[in-house]
Amino acid sequence: MSSSAIAFARQNHARFLDELKALLRIPSVSTLPEHKGDCRRAAEVLAAELRRIGMENVRLIETEGHPLVYADWLHAAGKPTALCYGHYDVQPPDPLDEWISPPFEPTERNGNIYARGAVDDKGQVWAQVKALESLLAADGKLPINVRVLLEGEEEVGGEGIANFVASKPPELKSDFALVCDTELFAPGLPTLCVGLRGMIYTEIEVRGAKTDLHSGMYGGAAPNPFVSLAQIIARLKDENGHILIPGFYDGIIPPSAEELAAWRSLPFDEEEYRKAEVGSRQLVGEAGYSVLERTWARPTLDVHGIPGGFTGAGAKTVIPAKAQAKVSMRLVPGMTPARAFEQYKSYVEKIAPAGVDVEVRLIHSGDPCLVPVDNPYIQAATRALHEVWGKDTVFIRSGGSIPIVGDFDRHLGLPSVMMGFGLPDDNLHAPNEKFHLKNFELGIESLIRFLQEAGR
Amino acid sequence: MSSSAIAFARQNHARFLDELKALLRIPSVSTLPEHKGDCRRAAEVLAAELRRIGMENVRLIETEGHPLVYADWLHAAGKPTALCYGHYDVQPPDPLDEWISPPFEPTERNGNIYARGAVDDKGQVWAQVKALESLLAADGKLPINVRVLLEGEEEVGGEGIANFVASKPPELKSDFALVCDTELFAPGLPTLCVGLRGMIYTEIEVRGAKTDLHSGMYGGAAPNPFVSLAQIIARLKDENGHILIPGFYDGIIPPSAEELAAWRSLPFDEEEYRKAEVGSRQLVGEAGYSVLERTWARPTLDVHGIPGGFTGAGAKTVIPAKAQAKVSMRLVPGMTPARAFEQYKSYVEKIAPAGVDVEVRLIHSGDPCLVPVDNPYIQAATRALHEVWGKDTVFIRSGGSIPIVGDFDRHLGLPSVMMGFGLPDDNLHAPNEKFHLKNFELGIESLIRFLQEAGR
Repeated sequence: MSSSAIAFARQNHARFLDELKALLRIPSVSTLPEHKGDCRRAAEVLAAELRRIGMENVRLIETEGHPLVYADWLHAAGKPTALCYGHYDVQPPDPLDEWISPPFEPTERNGNIYARGAVDDKGQVWAQVKALESLLAADGKLPINVRVLLEGEEEVGGEGIANFVASKPPELKSDFALVCDTELFAPGLPTLCVGLRGMIYTEIEVRGAKTDLHSGMYGGAAPNPFVSLAQIIARLKDENGHILIPGFYDGIIPPSAEELAAWRSLPFDEEEYRKAEVGSRQLVGEAGYSVLERTWARPTLDVHGIPGGFTGAGAKTVIPAKAQAKVSMRLVPGMTPARAFEQYKSYVEKIAPAGVDVEVRLIHSGDPCLVPVDNPYIQAATRALHEVWGKDTVFIRSGGSIPIVGDFDRHLGLPSVMMGFGLPDDNLHAPNEKFHLKNFELGIESLIRFLQEAGR
Repeated sequence: MSSSAIAFARQNHARFLDELKALLRIPSVSTLPEHKGDCRRAAEVLAAELRRIGMENVRLIETEGHPLVYADWLHAAGKPTALCYGHYDVQPPDPLDEWISPPFEPTERNGNIYARGAVDDKGQVWAQVKALESLLAADGKLPINVRVLLEGEEEVGGEGIANFVASKPPELKSDFALVCDTELFAPGLPTLCVGLRGMIYTEIEVRGAKTDLHSGMYGGAAPNPFVSLAQIIARLKDENGHILIPGFYDGIIPPSAEELAAWRSLPFDEEEYRKAEVGSRQLVGEAGYSVLERTWARPTLDVHGIPGGFTGAGAKTVIPAKAQAKVSMRLVPGMTPARAFEQYKSYVEKIAPAGVDVEVRLIHSGDPCLVPVDNPYIQAATRALHEVWGKDTVFIRSGGSIPIVGDFDRHLGLPSVMMGFGLPDDNLHAPNEKFHLKNFELGIESLIRFLQEAGR
C-alpha cells in the first residue's frame, strides 16, 4: 500500500490550511436569509476545488434552500463505493462580543485555528477533500470508488439533502457513507461514533391580549404570555431533569450491558468535565444515570431562547401581546420524532394556562440511529485509525443529531462510518469555535488510510 | 371670572395642534442611549416655548440623565402656588411593524392624533403649556402662581427629578402639584385620579455554563438557564394570579367600603373591557376581586421580556450560558418598594434551581399613593371639570405608577391633583398610541378653568 499520498499531504499541509482559511472566511450561516449568497459561494468554492483535484461530474444540485455539492470518481472497478458527506453551512456566530478573534477571520492561536465552522464542519469537509486530492495527486487514482455529497443546511434541519436522498437518485448508489462531522472522545484517542440522538426542534407561541398593554393599567387582569410560557416550560421538565410529557420515555431501548461497561472504561471524569467543559456550579440531569448515559442515551429537553417582549436595556412596563419559546428535545433509539412531537404538542396544549392561545410548531426533526460495530467498513476504519494514531479505536455515541445518517440508512440502505476529528472543547455552536491543527493534519491522513483500507 | 382665555384657546386650536405635532416628531425615547440627543431637544423645545409665552426663570436643570425643564410665574400675590408636572420622554415604539402610521410621524385619523407620546405624556404636557399661554395672552397674567417642572425620565424611573425633589430646592415651594399624566375613566366623563399603584422593576439573571454549549453534546448534563428561569417565574405567580412570594400581601390597606361601592357604580363592563381593550380569550387574575380592584388596589407581577439566548428566525441548537428576565411588581397602599424587593429577592434566591447562579437586580421603584378627596385643590378641580364637561367628577385610582407623586408628597408635602385627559383605549406603551383631539381641546379648557378656580 502506497504511502505517497500521506507524503503529499504532509508536504502540502501549509497550503491546505491556507485554503481552509479562505473557506472559513465565507459566512455561510444557513439560518439567516441575509447569508443566502454566502452559502452559495461556499458551495461554489467546494465544487471548484473538487473539479480542480480531479473529481468528476462535479455540480451543484439545487434545492429549495441552499444547494448540494456533488462529485464522483468511479474508476475503481470491483471496489466498493463510499459516499462522503459533510456540510458547508455554519451556525450563527452570536453572541459576537464573546469571540476573542472575529468569527469569520480565521486566526491561529495555541495550535488551533479559531473560526465559526472551523470544526463544524468546514475543517472536516476540507480534510476529506484534501485526502482525495492527496490520493489522486500521488497515485493518479483513488483506492475505491468515491461519491461526494455536501450540503448547506445541516444547521437548519437539512431539508434539501433529505428530500434528495429520499428520492433515491442513482448517483447516490454506494456501499457505505463516510460522515465527517463528529469528534475524538479525548485528544489523541481515535474514535468512531456509532450512535446519535435524534431530535425535534419546536416553537411554542403564546398569545394573550390583542396588542401590547401597559402593565400598570392592565396588570392583574390581562394575561401575560411570558408568565404563561414560563408556567408551560416549568411543567415540561422538572428540577431533576425528568421530562414530564406523558409517555415520552415509553419504548426507549437502553444501551447494552457491554456498551455501558465500555463507556465506564473511557477516560472520562465527570468533575473535570464540569469544570473544564461546562464550567457550571454543578451538572444537572436525571439521577441514576452517568453523564455519558445522560448525554448519549437519554432524551433531554432544552430551551434555546424566548423571543418577543421587551429585551432592550433599562425598563419598559409592557404586557407583551405574545411570546415565543424555542424548545428542542433530543431523542434516543426506540423513540421517533413523529410520536415525540405528537406527545409534546398534545401535552403543551393541555397544560396551557387560561386566558392565552397556544400554538406549537415543529421546525425540524431527525431520527436517532445506531450503527453495528461489526460492519466491515467500521472494521476498516479501526485499522486505519490504529495506524495513524497508534491506538485502538473507542466506540462512542454522540448526544448530537446528524439526521442525514438516519436518511442514508432508511432510504439508501447505507451504514455510516462516523469518523471525526473534533475535540470535546472545540466550542461547537458557541463563541471561539476552533479546530486543533494537529487533528486537521492527522484527520487527512486517517481519511487517506481509511479509503485505502476500505479498498483492500 | 374671565372666559377670554378659553376664547383664545379655541381660536388657536389649530396652531396648538401643529405645535404638538412638532414635539411628537422628536423621538425622545428615554431608555435608549441613542436617543439621548432627542431627549435634550424635546426639553429645549419646551423651554423655548415656555419662554415665548411669558413664563419666567426658564431653564434646563441638568441631571445625571436627561435634563429637567423649569419655569415659573410668581406675580399672583396672596394666591396659592401650583407646581405643574409632566414628562417629555416616551416609551420605545417597538414592535414597529404593528404601527399603522409611523410612531414619530404624528397622523390624524378618526378624530385622534396617533404618535408615540401623543397622550403619554407630550399631549398632556402641551395642554398645560397652552393653558398657561391662553391665560397669559388673554389676561396678561395668571390667576395663581405657577411653577412648571417637566422631566425626561418618567419612563425609566425618574431618578433625576426624584433626586432634585428630594433635595427640597426653594424653587419648588408650592401649595399643590398638578400632574397631567392620567386619563378619563370613560369618554366624556371628567375624572380625577386619587390613587396610584407603586412598583418595583427588576431583572433576574441566571447563569449556567461558562459559555454557550451545543445542546446535542451537552443536553442532559449542562444546566439550561432558560429552563431554570421558567421554573423560577412559574413559582412567582400561580395560574390563578396569586403571587407566591412569602409575606408579599402582608399589611395591604384595602379600599374602604365607600370607595368599593363608588367603583361598582362606574360605567364599567368587564366583558366589554375584555373584548374591546384587552382582546384576550379571557381575563385573568385573583378570584374574588373585580377587574377594577385587581388593577387599582391589588399587587401584581408581570414579565416584560426574557432576553438572551437565540431569538432569530429558524433554529439554533444552543444551551445559552445565561438568561435574563425583566420582572416588575405593582404595589398598593400598605406596601413599600424596599420591603417588597427584599421579600422577592430572598425568595428568588431561595427557589433558584440547582446548577445555576442567580442574581436579582432592582432597576427602579416607586411608592404607591392615595390623595384625600376633601383637599381644596381637588375640590377646585371638580368645579372646573363640571363647568367644561357638564358632569360630576368621578374619583378613580390608576393601576399605573407615577413615582413623582409620592416624591412630591414625601419631600415637599404637596398633595397632587392628578387631572388627565387620556382614554382607556389610547394604547399607552403600545403600538398606535393616540390622543383624542377633542380631549386635547377640552383638556386645555379644563386646565384654564382649574387654575382660575384654584385662585378664587
